[in-house]
Amino acid sequence: MIRKAVYPGSFDPVTNGHLDIVKRAANIFDEVIIAVFFNPNKDPVFTMEERVEMLKVATESLENVYVDSFSGLTTKYVHKVGGGAIVRGLRAVSDFEGEFQMASMNKYLDSDIETVFFMTDTKYAFLSSSVIKEAAYFDGDINELVPDNVYKKLKEKVTP
Amino acid sequence: MIRKAVYPGSFDPVTNGHLDIVKRAANIFDEVIIAVFFNPNKDPVFTMEERVEMLKVATESLENVYVDSFSGLTTKYVHKVGGGAIVRGLRAVSDFEGEFQMASMNKYLDSDIETVFFMTDTKYAFLSSSVIKEAAYFDGDINELVPDNVYKKLKEKVTP
Amino acid sequence: MIRKAVYPGSFDPVTNGHLDIVKRAANIFDEVIIAVFFNPNKDPVFTMEERVEMLKVATESLENVYVDSFSGLTTKYVHKVGGGAIVRGLRAVSDFEGEFQMASMNKYLDSDIETVFFMTDTKYAFLSSSVIKEAAYFDGDINELVPDNVYKKLKEKVTP
Amino acid sequence: MIRKAVYPGSFDPVTNGHLDIVKRAANIFDEVIIAVFFNPNKDPVFTMEERVEMLKVATESLENVYVDSFSGLTTKYVHKVGGGAIVRGLRAVSDFEGEFQMASMNKYLDSDIETVFFMTDTKYAFLSSSVIKEAAYFDGDINELVPDNVYKKLKEKVTP
Amino acid sequence: MIRKAVYPGSFDPVTNGHLDIVKRAANIFDEVIIAVFFNPNKDPVFTMEERVEMLKVATESLENVYVDSFSGLTTKYVHKVGGGAIVRGLRAVSDFEGEFQMASMNKYLDSDIETVFFMTDTKYAFLSSSVIKEAAYFDGDINELVPDNVYKKLKEKVTP
Amino acid sequence: MIRKAVYPGSFDPVTNGHLDIVKRAANIFDEVIIAVFFNPNKDPVFTMEERVEMLKVATESLENVYVDSFSGLTTKYVHKVGGGAIVRGLRAVSDFEGEFQMASMNKYLDSDIETVFFMTDTKYAFLSSSVIKEAAYFDGDINELVPDNVYKKLKEKVTP
Repeated sequence: MIRKAVYPGSFDPVTNGHLDIVKRAANIFDEVIIAVFFNPNKDPVFTMEERVEMLKVATESLENVYVDSFSGLTTKYVHKVGGGAIVRGLRAVSDFEGEFQMASMNKYLDSDIETVFFMTDTKYAFLSSSVIKEAAYFDGDINELVPDNVYKKLKEKVTP
Repeated sequence: MIRKAVYPGSFDPVTNGHLDIVKRAANIFDEVIIAVFFNPNKDPVFTMEERVEMLKVATESLENVYVDSFSGLTTKYVHKVGGGAIVRGLRAVSDFEGEFQMASMNKYLDSDIETVFFMTDTKYAFLSSSVIKEAAYFDGDINELVPDNVYKKLKEKVTP
Repeated sequence: MIRKAVYPGSFDPVTNGHLDIVKRAANIFDEVIIAVFFNPNKDPVFTMEERVEMLKVATESLENVYVDSFSGLTTKYVHKVGGGAIVRGLRAVSDFEGEFQMASMNKYLDSDIETVFFMTDTKYAFLSSSVIKEAAYFDGDINELVPDNVYKKLKEKVTP
Repeated sequence: MIRKAVYPGSFDPVTNGHLDIVKRAANIFDEVIIAVFFNPNKDPVFTMEERVEMLKVATESLENVYVDSFSGLTTKYVHKVGGGAIVRGLRAVSDFEGEFQMASMNKYLDSDIETVFFMTDTKYAFLSSSVIKEAAYFDGDINELVPDNVYKKLKEKVTP
Repeated sequence: MIRKAVYPGSFDPVTNGHLDIVKRAANIFDEVIIAVFFNPNKDPVFTMEERVEMLKVATESLENVYVDSFSGLTTKYVHKVGGGAIVRGLRAVSDFEGEFQMASMNKYLDSDIETVFFMTDTKYAFLSSSVIKEAAYFDGDINELVPDNVYKKLKEKVTP
Repeated sequence: MIRKAVYPGSFDPVTNGHLDIVKRAANIFDEVIIAVFFNPNKDPVFTMEERVEMLKVATESLENVYVDSFSGLTTKYVHKVGGGAIVRGLRAVSDFEGEFQMASMNKYLDSDIETVFFMTDTKYAFLSSSVIKEAAYFDGDINELVPDNVYKKLKEKVTP
């Protein structure tokens, strides 16, 4: 029986769409670890420490949700922390094919680990970290699309 | 915490693709109810009794899996049996949009019930009950695509 | 300059998703004709008269919106009423390919007539007349998904 | 080396989009057999004899193209006539998923038979036999979308 | 009533596919402003001045079409110039999901502004500024895919 | 009659998915040239010489398959070597739209050259050169996804 799941991602920064998925997963699994991926080839806007911290603040009311970071293969990380499932969100638009490719590769790499998909609320169907950063950069009104602490951080960090 | 899930469908008949999803769900939930939907507007090849029986035989080794039938709204049935989640499979091709539409409607009808998607193994990516029935009708070699008991039933029932 | 548009469809029955599109079109065109299509090969739940009447009630507050019915080619009807554009809604899921095929055929049949697409609000992304009828049939709570008059009609007409 | 291919379909009736694919395939294979499928569950507008005859007339200038009919599994028919490939057309819109499902099932049923896809010219991207029949029924101007002989037949057969 | 629309984009450079959309929009709206977006994070082949100039030459025969440039949020620019709609083109392939995401975000940022989609002619279904630049770079024959003035500019600018 | 085909790509590095397509094409055409594309704007992991060499080793048992490299337009290269067709693979996920766009552009640039699509085996549906490189970088077990010689090269080249 799989009771511990990992929700991997860049979370640069976490959005309300991500939190929507976290809450759904936390209703199914005893323990959900949000695992921020360290990608050596990308140049994030927020540091690993900032991303982890923003997630911790945004999820502090969820008792069975933890925040961590990792580098390397997702399947190896999930195995290491004793998890059995990878959680992913699907938005009405644009996610399906990339997610399916990733889930298939992960199943190839470790067939014991299951990928479980939750559907994002349609009101977040268009939301992504990059869309948020672009809107924040140009001073768009995004305060209902990200947690409060992220909103403040974005205002400081992402300005023209 | 959601520990009981319902996997609704027509299962006319159950395929190895369906069973693949059942096994994945049974690793996540304490109890999975496969619920055969009675659709007043469709004319199935197998009767409700046959479909339920084929599923029972095909899943008898899975301890936390039960088979039932229902009519009416899926969300009401899930609520009635005390379930908290609807299980659905996604194939690499062709399922995503219809599944998303159904999951959104179900969320609208009962927001307490979560839809959880599992990805079918790529080797079953092309499999559907109707493709199976068509191949069986023309005497195609499908014995690795359905459980043994279904294979025999198909040979009896679906002949030109 | 194209100032009159036709929004063709079956409207069996009209949903709030359809009305969302009508309102958007009515902000762009001087006159929008909602044209209920008589399809000799389909068996609708509501009669042509009922569908037209439900639309008239639902759109009576929109001054530049009219309701009509037609049979035959959409392009010929649009030409006959002196329109220059066909209005269509696109939902986040499942519409794009069928709509594109229809619009291409219409452009082939009459290149003077433009098809203009509006995007349905994401909250109606899953909505269709058939999903509504199915939910109504099984007594699902759909009163926020259709206009009030349609809700009453559905309760009378579509019962198990 | 595969030198003989089968192009299966309903061809009810053949369109210029189908002929576009036939010509492409006839440049690759020594012999292309257009094989009209007899589907016991469908009610075509044209009889099998009419569909075969229309195809013969429309392809008479293509020396290495033959017309035949069959019932049963496509893979068995291809095997019987000594073919090694199934030819299919892909349109820019709407074909991909159904075609992929069918090709995968055919590969499962007979792994010796290859499915080869050609891309329809974009000017036929919206064309299908059903769209043609609908337009013909309502007297749309479709003479450039089907071969001449089909155009005449359609005018006789499909009238309101 | 919305009578002024903005068609935003990079136009690096404008193609005949873009012009096709401009002409369609100019038949619906009293005034269409083609607005070249200044993206601080991208490195275009043509300067802002060149892109604006190429657009002006290519659209000089269209009386109600104007060319401008902007930076920042599209919705703020549309609001500033007194426009009510954003015009976007949809190609048969590959555009739909990204366009839907952008339109949803824009609707979130300013719900008064409508996005209106036109369908590109199928003969331009494969056309994009980047495909044009790649073909031009390798001396492909693209003179029917871009306006004459752009063709000359491309020959000067994009050579190996 | 087209008897010689070109399979163009980056092959950085070749995967078993690519080889699957090569074998299919080699059953249809008398001669298949795998042509490694030199892209001046990309920074490959393997040099052109390494990519060609890995392909030669991986295909040495296929008598009618040759390996070459080229720069410039694919259609010009195909023409130069006397080929008549471009071979491309389609995976169940994510390829279709980009491939269709490229094939349309190639048809525009040289209408004598046909693009022929083969369907990748579903077991390689998730496979791509970049997914392989990422997994190799993090020491994932990928030896069944690439030819032996490529596996060794990857282990040397791609290490954290």
